[in-house]
Amino acid sequence: MKSKKFLLEEKEIPTAWYNIMAEMKNKPRPILNPQTKQAMTVDDLQTLFTKAASEQELNMTDAWVEIPEEVRDMYKIWRPTPLVRAYGLEKMLDTPAHIYFKNESVSPVGSHKLNSAIPQAFYCKKEGVTNVTTETGAGQWGAALSMATKHFGLELAVYMVKVSYHQKPYRRSIMQTYGAQVIASPSMSTKAGRRILTDTPNYQGSLGTAISEAVELARSTPNCKYALGSVMNHVSLHQTVIGLEAEKQMAMTGEYPDVVIGCFGGGSNFAGISFPFMRHNFTGERNTRFVAAEPSSCPKLTRGELCYDFGDEAGYTPLMPMYTLGHKFSPANIHAGGLRYHGAGTIVSQLKIDGFVEAVDIQQTETFKAATLFAQAEGIIPAPESSHAIAAAIREAEQAKLEGKQKVILFNLSGHGLIDMTAYDQYIMGDLTNYEVPEEDIKSNIAGLDLII
Amino acid sequence: MKSKKFLLEEKEIPTAWYNIMAEMKNKPRPILNPQTKQAMTVDDLQTLFTKAASEQELNMTDAWVEIPEEVRDMYKIWRPTPLVRAYGLEKMLDTPAHIYFKNESVSPVGSHKLNSAIPQAFYCKKEGVTNVTTETGAGQWGAALSMATKHFGLELAVYMVKVSYHQKPYRRSIMQTYGAQVIASPSMSTKAGRRILTDTPNYQGSLGTAISEAVELARSTPNCKYALGSVMNHVSLHQTVIGLEAEKQMAMTGEYPDVVIGCFGGGSNFAGISFPFMRHNFTGERNTRFVAAEPSSCPKLTRGELCYDFGDEAGYTPLMPMYTLGHKFSPANIHAGGLRYHGAGTIVSQLKIDGFVEAVDIQQTETFKAATLFAQAEGIIPAPESSHAIAAAIREAEQAKLEGKQKVILFNLSGHGLIDMTAYDQYIMGDLTNYEVPEEDIKSNIAGLDLII
Repeated sequence: MKSKKFLLEEKEIPTAWYNIMAEMKNKPRPILNPQTKQAMTVDDLQTLFTKAASEQELNMTDAWVEIPEEVRDMYKIWRPTPLVRAYGLEKMLDTPAHIYFKNESVSPVGSHKLNSAIPQAFYCKKEGVTNVTTETGAGQWGAALSMATKHFGLELAVYMVKVSYHQKPYRRSIMQTYGAQVIASPSMSTKAGRRILTDTPNYQGSLGTAISEAVELARSTPNCKYALGSVMNHVSLHQTVIGLEAEKQMAMTGEYPDVVIGCFGGGSNFAGISFPFMRHNFTGERNTRFVAAEPSSCPKLTRGELCYDFGDEAGYTPLMPMYTLGHKFSPANIHAGGLRYHGAGTIVSQLKIDGFVEAVDIQQTETFKAATLFAQAEGIIPAPESSHAIAAAIREAEQAKLEGKQKVILFNLSGHGLIDMTAYDQYIMGDLTNYEVPEEDIKSNIAGLDLII
Repeated sequence: MKSKKFLLEEKEIPTAWYNIMAEMKNKPRPILNPQTKQAMTVDDLQTLFTKAASEQELNMTDAWVEIPEEVRDMYKIWRPTPLVRAYGLEKMLDTPAHIYFKNESVSPVGSHKLNSAIPQAFYCKKEGVTNVTTETGAGQWGAALSMATKHFGLELAVYMVKVSYHQKPYRRSIMQTYGAQVIASPSMSTKAGRRILTDTPNYQGSLGTAISEAVELARSTPNCKYALGSVMNHVSLHQTVIGLEAEKQMAMTGEYPDVVIGCFGGGSNFAGISFPFMRHNFTGERNTRFVAAEPSSCPKLTRGELCYDFGDEAGYTPLMPMYTLGHKFSPANIHAGGLRYHGAGTIVSQLKIDGFVEAVDIQQTETFKAATLFAQAEGIIPAPESSHAIAAAIREAEQAKLEGKQKVILFNLSGHGLIDMTAYDQYIMGDLTNYEVPEEDIKSNIAGLDLII
């Protein structure tokens, strides 16, 4: 009987995260203080983030960063996660390709987000922080951080993008069940929120605005830090447990991926599955392709420009060198709420410049067609976000069939979609629409930013 | 570092189910043809169920029934499931008890129901059946059978209790995503449905009525069989993979349970976790307690009578010897939809008579208090149904604390609650109510049934 799952033992949970910055020939450009245009230091970052996260954010030297014992202990709740050979999908596609996926959906909150929520909450606890703020789009990150902060006895306030707050009440309830306070953003509780509500009373919110509110609350609350679920280097670092496990598991299969695929919002799950494999490209030992799958409605890697831009709508964050659609860009209200972010983060942006990362964009209907096929073939209903990676994997498998080539495809199933069934409902009813961002929208939002290239 | 999870390898998935009937000293009383009052034969049962399921239903001789290779192959999608030491919960309760749970929530549909859905769908395929009907309450069984029938290329029609159809649209969408047809019950598509809609136009449905509709459709459709997700002996048989794995995993912990707990609706998850351990009580080797946790609003084991009763509301099924509240009993609309069933099945009923099974009843508020505590302590949001088992486990742990006794508690976490968050919402808002079934309701519903004792 063929093996479907490739499993590791608890003791094989990685003991160190992989810090790709240490091994990149061209380091990411520095993030800048918007006032002084000077490179941010650890001290600067610490006004917002924990000391540990701030140090990790700028660590260009250590390729391996030890995972604290307390974090590994919590990882054991669900890690190591399975690597799965998708025989069912291969059969449905009638492809010569071998398709594997890393199943991060088995976490108790249903996504990979816990991988970074746990260390971030742990560092808060360790550094004596008592209050934490964050933002969440679809609610995956908020749910993960709610669970992690509760575990370490911290208070958490989550700004949830208003449209999701109303469309995804289940994720709100999950956060509340873990004991977090959840506020619809934009709200009247911050200056940033009040300003945007004054200008646009019915504004349904965006991740950029929610970040502004969470940052503002953190800055005005004693003994409070801010935690971010993607985009930042330290978040990508934490997510490398995904790829490090997958690397060992691929060795168990006797194969090695020709292409590694992750969906792309702020980049954390893509980084997690990719970076550990990418280090073998750096040495020339391997020549794997890495594909970031983003929604057509938020195409920063495929159609954005490399600029210095803010991470949030109000301009509270440092300036980051990244592929961006502009921090005022308001993406269409697609169901993959976790992918609706304007910028790509500094590491992936540099890796794209250097030719290590490719990007593809995928429309909603292709995404949900892939999601439904996967659900019927493999039995797991995927998150709308993760379904972008599935759609990209299917494109690769169909190409392999056309070319009659054996090819090994690995993608990250970053989460399940059991709490996103309204999206599937719309697909079943034929009500899903596709969005093509007008060129002038991108141009007008980028106008005024400092172009890097 | 202490181990949280006790994991088995894929090859340790059991190769045979445990058929407790073969080793019961007092066999369950026979199920009867309601017209002739004669014991049902395999041939009789085959008019409704597959041949394999019918044989298993009446198999009093073989203690071990081989699990088909195709079924084990599908079990590999998520099995073996983890056994988890609930250190977090122990700490929160400050109890000397050691608490373990078997985590069946990791299945792709979120519950243990797949354990029986897969063999039932497989036997249909093997016997050339092309159409399957079933009913579902909260939707857990319907989701599982939808996935399994899709895998084997069968058509499925699911009658979903109307109140759940409207309150739990997510589970309906899950079934539809897997390709099943879902009908709100009572419906106009069957005689049973039309009759009840004529008598009570606004009737919100019950499992009993949905079973009547599914049975009627199966009988009137060519090449069609009916599949049931609980109550029946063959379903309990399939679920023993839970306890058989748990037995091996408890051995890894170096401990043995003093008490084994499962929530109780039709009895399938309780049977699954209990029966493999119970066989060591039969031999006198062990003296484990087995506790069935049922909702106070549907207290068949704690307050019902042992009668010959129908399994469905319309009286289409055989007469079954079981603890029952009467097949016309209409349970209060609690959130644990999967536990709203009037009867206890024949095996568990006999085991209760013989003193092997205890039962406790639990109110909604105690259930959700336990659920929230568990979510915050262990990170997993439990299904409302499973939370009855958690509440019973907490009672045992608190008793151990009072008595200053070391005690080993094992319960089955039959499913997660990520699709039941409206129930948590009500709990958070303080809107959950408790139900005490009036004694005269039970009496009036049981009046006219054949009492066994």
